Amino acid sequence: MTSALYLDYNATTPVAPEVADAMEPYLREHFGNPSSSHRFGQQARAAVEQARGQVAGLIGVDTDEIVFTSCATEANNLAILGAARALHGRGRHLITSAIEHPAVAAPMAHLTEQGWEVTVLPVDATGRVAPADLAGALRGDTVLVSVMHANNEVGTLQPIAELAGLARQRGALFHTNAAQSAGKVALDAAALRVDLLTLAGHKFYAPKGIGALYVRAGTPLAPVLFGAGQERGLRPGTENVPHIVGLGAAAERVRQQLPEITGRLRRQRDALHGRLAEAIPGLVLNGHAEDRLPNTLNLAFPGVSGRDLLARAPEVAASVGSACHEGAGAVSGVLGAMGVTPERARGAVRLSIGEPTGDDDIEAAAQALIGAWRGLFSV
Amino acid sequence: MTSALYLDYNATTPVAPEVADAMEPYLREHFGNPSSSHRFGQQARAAVEQARGQVAGLIGVDTDEIVFTSCATEANNLAILGAARALHGRGRHLITSAIEHPAVAAPMAHLTEQGWEVTVLPVDATGRVAPADLAGALRGDTVLVSVMHANNEVGTLQPIAELAGLARQRGALFHTNAAQSAGKVALDAAALRVDLLTLAGHKFYAPKGIGALYVRAGTPLAPVLFGAGQERGLRPGTENVPHIVGLGAAAERVRQQLPEITGRLRRQRDALHGRLAEAIPGLVLNGHAEDRLPNTLNLAFPGVSGRDLLARAPEVAASVGSACHEGAGAVSGVLGAMGVTPERARGAVRLSIGEPTGDDDIEAAAQALIGAWRGLFSV
Repeated sequence: MTSALYLDYNATTPVAPEVADAMEPYLREHFGNPSSSHRFGQQARAAVEQARGQVAGLIGVDTDEIVFTSCATEANNLAILGAARALHGRGRHLITSAIEHPAVAAPMAHLTEQGWEVTVLPVDATGRVAPADLAGALRGDTVLVSVMHANNEVGTLQPIAELAGLARQRGALFHTNAAQSAGKVALDAAALRVDLLTLAGHKFYAPKGIGALYVRAGTPLAPVLFGAGQERGLRPGTENVPHIVGLGAAAERVRQQLPEITGRLRRQRDALHGRLAEAIPGLVLNGHAEDRLPNTLNLAFPGVSGRDLLARAPEVAASVGSACHEGAGAVSGVLGAMGVTPERARGAVRLSIGEPTGDDDIEAAAQALIGAWRGLFSV
Repeated sequence: MTSALYLDYNATTPVAPEVADAMEPYLREHFGNPSSSHRFGQQARAAVEQARGQVAGLIGVDTDEIVFTSCATEANNLAILGAARALHGRGRHLITSAIEHPAVAAPMAHLTEQGWEVTVLPVDATGRVAPADLAGALRGDTVLVSVMHANNEVGTLQPIAELAGLARQRGALFHTNAAQSAGKVALDAAALRVDLLTLAGHKFYAPKGIGALYVRAGTPLAPVLFGAGQERGLRPGTENVPHIVGLGAAAERVRQQLPEITGRLRRQRDALHGRLAEAIPGLVLNGHAEDRLPNTLNLAFPGVSGRDLLARAPEVAASVGSACHEGAGAVSGVLGAMGVTPERARGAVRLSIGEPTGDDDIEAAAQALIGAWRGLFSV
């Protein structure tokens, strides 16, 4: 298998070699349980705490504000269900957006079944939530607002600082799912003014199976899983030491290299867009032209279905929506919420660039996709 | 750091080299998201499904009866909270034992706060639940019984098949936390007659951060986390492919080697017990003399505290209870439930043998512990 034309880095990234190298001693040599008081345990504990500091450093927060979870889905559930359970005495109203990942939308739906009221904010044609809409939706009994930092399908970045500021004024907590943005754009939890922020290891070159939740000091939060007292009681279970070490190494790596990474991703993505646009009349960008992840290119190919297009360019590994929806076959809910017509949504393909992507990959992918589109269009 | 005198394999095991070897390609090479429909995704999907078959093979069940979780704590929560939520219309009574791990006891306590009634069965002096006690506690509104297969502190094995048979007669589901028994004794889910069974990777030479729940076909179960539809909707979140592959490899390995492993663990454990007993008058075994994990030796050292004893034998890495309780400093609740006196409980040390333990380690540990005891006793 060649990885040359993998353009689905929003679905998942490979583990960076230096991250795998950092993990390996914790897979093959150091194996203590961090809860054990003997030296094997204490060594594992030290590794976990070092990684916690590295993850905190990525988003500019205190070490003890990071809770490790098994994935971003679990972090989102902890943020939403945990805040709701901690604050149900203060109110039973939640606010979210129409384009959230199922890992946010599904716990919201669960709370609706439990008697909570959830207001779903619309997005504009570029996929953005209007701060005025949030201002109008906030109520005295709103306990939590959850709006994603960057959309996984179209890459649109939300005005989180502004939205979170509105929530704070009204005494509501603010959570953002930053699973897609970490490793692609700078993340500063204080500047974003959020109380809760989700990270996903496998979106920035750490392994699948590890995530983290930033919990601002003093934020009320109840656990979702119950057991022994790991992670200050917020996330029981023996710690996944190798993956936690990997998440720390990935965070450290991104923190050091981000400006260079962001610039290169944007240049390559825009080159791919340019090549495709000059060859395919009527090609349309889905998402915000500027305020968007630097690696994400969601394009509506005219007159064809995205699925057929990718089937005809099998050397290009990309997706027609998020990986989580791949099986569904239905039109993307994100594009629908943006008001994209069903016909245009049918032609959508998400191309997401990653750090291993080379300039030659961009050219090869462009040729393959142009060839596939011409082949289908001439049928 | 030498691992020579690590005798805390019930707290956690190292990753077996062949397990780490099986994982490594999924850390360093194959990285697809199993939900992606392209070839990168499908290769990851195939690896996950192969591992599912290997885990199913370890306990003699169908492949699609295995749900991967991030740890045994999560599997226990899914079993208990998930069954309770799925069946709350049928009744709100649960039964468990007095010596469960916090990963079972804590979700039970959470359900108590939610209005459920939980009956806690006592254990005898060897740590066993009496089937007659369960028979007397089962009611028409009992929806779930959860009794651990083997106790983590004293190793006592419960008469699960008999207990589960009683539950089945009364229409209640039966869950067993087999986190400690997998890899040490044979596990046959059908023979045990259980509906739900928890496995913990890091107790049988797979990494920390992966577990599984056996869910017998047809068992009603609601999810605890909400998101996309992974694991048949029971456990959302992108799969931890490398750890799942590791769990599969560990299950395959144990399935092939178990009779030999069990015999050697028992021989070494009994040799250690014999050496200590001949040198230390009044040494007492905590737990069942026969029906016990072959690797577990919980001993009450007379006239000393277990903590002081281990402090004086720093080359021996063992524990005075379960790793999860290490920080607490209080006397073990397990020993208390068995009616062990506080004085005897104070002297308790858990020595748990593992596959890497050599006969020379047994002798060295015996000498160190005997020396430490004599040193303390003569003070």
